[in-house]
Amino acid sequence: MLKSLLAPALTGVFAVGSALAQSAAPIPEDIRDTAEALMERALAGDEVGLKFVEDLTTEVGPRLAGSEAEARARDWAMRELKELNFQVVRTEDFTIPYWSRVVERAEVVSPASQSLIITALGGSTATPEGGVEAELVRFESMAALEAASAEEVSGKIVFLDEPMTRTMDGSGYGFAVRKRRNCAAATTERGGLACLIRSVGTQSHRMPHTGMMARGQAVGAGPAAALSAPDADQLARLMERGPVTVNVNIQVETAEDAPSGNIIAEVPGTDLADEIVLIGCHLDSWDLGTGAIDDGAGCGIVVGAAKLIAELPSAPRRTIRVVLYGSEEVGLLGGRAYADTHIDDLDKHVFAAESDFGAGKIWRFETRFGEGAQGYAEALKEVLAPLGILPGGNEAFGGPDIGVLRMAGVPVVTPRQNGEDYFDLHHTPDDTFDKIDPDEFRQNVAAYAAMTYIVAETGWDLRKAAEPEGEGVGSE
Amino acid sequence: MLKSLLAPALTGVFAVGSALAQSAAPIPEDIRDTAEALMERALAGDEVGLKFVEDLTTEVGPRLAGSEAEARARDWAMRELKELNFQVVRTEDFTIPYWSRVVERAEVVSPASQSLIITALGGSTATPEGGVEAELVRFESMAALEAASAEEVSGKIVFLDEPMTRTMDGSGYGFAVRKRRNCAAATTERGGLACLIRSVGTQSHRMPHTGMMARGQAVGAGPAAALSAPDADQLARLMERGPVTVNVNIQVETAEDAPSGNIIAEVPGTDLADEIVLIGCHLDSWDLGTGAIDDGAGCGIVVGAAKLIAELPSAPRRTIRVVLYGSEEVGLLGGRAYADTHIDDLDKHVFAAESDFGAGKIWRFETRFGEGAQGYAEALKEVLAPLGILPGGNEAFGGPDIGVLRMAGVPVVTPRQNGEDYFDLHHTPDDTFDKIDPDEFRQNVAAYAAMTYIVAETGWDLRKAAEPEGEGVGSE
Repeated sequence: MLKSLLAPALTGVFAVGSALAQSAAPIPEDIRDTAEALMERALAGDEVGLKFVEDLTTEVGPRLAGSEAEARARDWAMRELKELNFQVVRTEDFTIPYWSRVVERAEVVSPASQSLIITALGGSTATPEGGVEAELVRFESMAALEAASAEEVSGKIVFLDEPMTRTMDGSGYGFAVRKRRNCAAATTERGGLACLIRSVGTQSHRMPHTGMMARGQAVGAGPAAALSAPDADQLARLMERGPVTVNVNIQVETAEDAPSGNIIAEVPGTDLADEIVLIGCHLDSWDLGTGAIDDGAGCGIVVGAAKLIAELPSAPRRTIRVVLYGSEEVGLLGGRAYADTHIDDLDKHVFAAESDFGAGKIWRFETRFGEGAQGYAEALKEVLAPLGILPGGNEAFGGPDIGVLRMAGVPVVTPRQNGEDYFDLHHTPDDTFDKIDPDEFRQNVAAYAAMTYIVAETGWDLRKAAEPEGEGVGSE
Repeated sequence: MLKSLLAPALTGVFAVGSALAQSAAPIPEDIRDTAEALMERALAGDEVGLKFVEDLTTEVGPRLAGSEAEARARDWAMRELKELNFQVVRTEDFTIPYWSRVVERAEVVSPASQSLIITALGGSTATPEGGVEAELVRFESMAALEAASAEEVSGKIVFLDEPMTRTMDGSGYGFAVRKRRNCAAATTERGGLACLIRSVGTQSHRMPHTGMMARGQAVGAGPAAALSAPDADQLARLMERGPVTVNVNIQVETAEDAPSGNIIAEVPGTDLADEIVLIGCHLDSWDLGTGAIDDGAGCGIVVGAAKLIAELPSAPRRTIRVVLYGSEEVGLLGGRAYADTHIDDLDKHVFAAESDFGAGKIWRFETRFGEGAQGYAEALKEVLAPLGILPGGNEAFGGPDIGVLRMAGVPVVTPRQNGEDYFDLHHTPDDTFDKIDPDEFRQNVAAYAAMTYIVAETGWDLRKAAEPEGEGVGSE
């Protein structure tokens, strides 16, 4: 039944993808049995992973990159990972340009006073004290703002009212996020005083979404903030009735070299201990919520999965390295710091995966393996299929912090999660522990535990190039 | 089909209610035809009522009782109602004790710093500047706090973590609201420094619900604020791990005699013009949202219904009086002022209804008519049934502002709306125009138009007492 459901999807993948059609590599029976036992244990109620998120988000709470709270999160994680009996628990420190919000206020001044709810974008510059006050000019898209003349924008506050599309895979984000990154620069270039964007988000509560804008060091091109969807609708309706003047007051704090760091914990391997199977997440969060779905959940998932493997009677052959990256939200700085630190042994990284898309159910498994390693990809997909995970192609993105590894040729996977609701919560005060569905969370732990274990124990070469004659990998 | 669906419900009502079983009074055919035409017009797209809410919430926005914004709302409504060609458009002014929030901030101080999202309750006293800082003491119910000794509470900040139950008819509110009204007094009596309640609300966003506490003049017994559900959960989890110290900083502004007022507009009657058919709503709102569901929608519904009737070729016999009450949120002050002003002609009020429960679909029609007037109640229920409205009993509450009329013996009805989601939005920043479903709104306008017209045109005596011999009203 399951096989017949999967067959058409498989055909589709091979038709679209460029990878060679290869049948699944055989997995030694004992490894497969252990992987299945790991999945069963995770589904039956992995409590280590879920408790990790609960404790992190409760005891530390929000953990803005470079802040005292992020440092507290590192201390907390070190303690917690040692208590869980992980080995080689350590930090790899680095410094970052620091930005935080101090004041963020906006109101309609005319035609009549009315308050707005905004949140400053990460990297926003401050306005003069008391704010800037000017007429709004509205654009329906980032493209429309980019096509505007200086005359249209100069002396005004830009209101960029571009909506974001809700999709299961979160792909609306890539398009929508451009306005967050570039609105301030486009506004400033045209002599505008500040930019207010309709939030990069999909919900209709009075809860704007923060997030990083493009920037030089700590700050970007000008003052910029996000409005909730109802506030954006309200401004649009008001502007239909006549000119609207708004006051925007943003005050910020910045520092050049704030402390941050990556936390590392390992399950040391045996005969292939120098080969690294990396599973990661990021420990920092935005300051508005407690960072439960972004990315406490991811950390709980990878820690929970690694802990299940660590509890096996014997360790797998390769070393499993859990990396809790710092300062992801402010420019993937932990990922870059990791790649810098490990520049000389990136070739020893045989696999990398990152969980950074909440705790929604994984519905498709994508890889980016060598052309000769497609049989391994198929084998992993077969193992994960009973979790309700469809087979995907070989063009996985991997994840934000492991992007530098992917670019350096490290084989990566994307266990793709249902992100239908992710951008309802992402970067808002609503990113809290109660938003995690424990059953869906456990399905993630199951998938991470199984795939990580198999890759670590089989010793498969996932970089493997295709043989000139296209010899079947299944014959290995 | 419809009749057979309704029959069991009718039986149920008569079994439970104390009213005499009477068959529906006949409605003259031309009146019934007109009522049906009014319903059809409303359902086909009443745009006056919906536009009234949209314009009020957009152009005025939030309208806190006694504020400059509420005064602006009165001016706006006067202008709007005159433009709609209502007659006798006037204000009936009164003054109220005024309260508004200036600062509302809370944070966990220990075991480690973490911000909380709170909103002050209406009538909260101010804390000393910089706030009060003390250990939390948690109670799971108002009853538990009331049973606590001074020793348990003295010098502490009370955290009243009582949840509210979601129900279709909103009946969870009556129970839950006691903690909002009484927490500060119970805390202060026991030497506590402030009270934080889990919001009187049913949603799980970081959006606390404001609302009035019990009070003397402008202020109540002490500082009090509401927490969102996720914030309350967070505090409960933190307290499971050890003592928690919190800082609560509330600053307020008060005044003794702030201006408020009721707005009145009429469709004058003909031969029974001195008899008043009153349909009301309240014009003021809390300050956090734009008061779209509470109670812009109610005002749109009664204005929309009255306008449909005003557009008929000839006016109904009795006078239809639309009352937009002021200062409802802060103690039903507009309702009391109206009763005071009209104390000498309350007997001329032959019917009253108030729409103050959002824009959700009406699902049951309840009356409070004289025992001899049950046939009229049945007749109205029959007319409204095609709108999907079930027949209810004869113990209607009426509405908050017409409570004084009900107590004075004025016949009232409750067109009971689906309030499943009402307390997700009630008294939060999320009470905005986008939350109104136009189709459900129009069903409300249809029901108000039909019932108001029938009561005005038939001249029915809804106070009518039962005849000693129980003579059928249907014979009249």
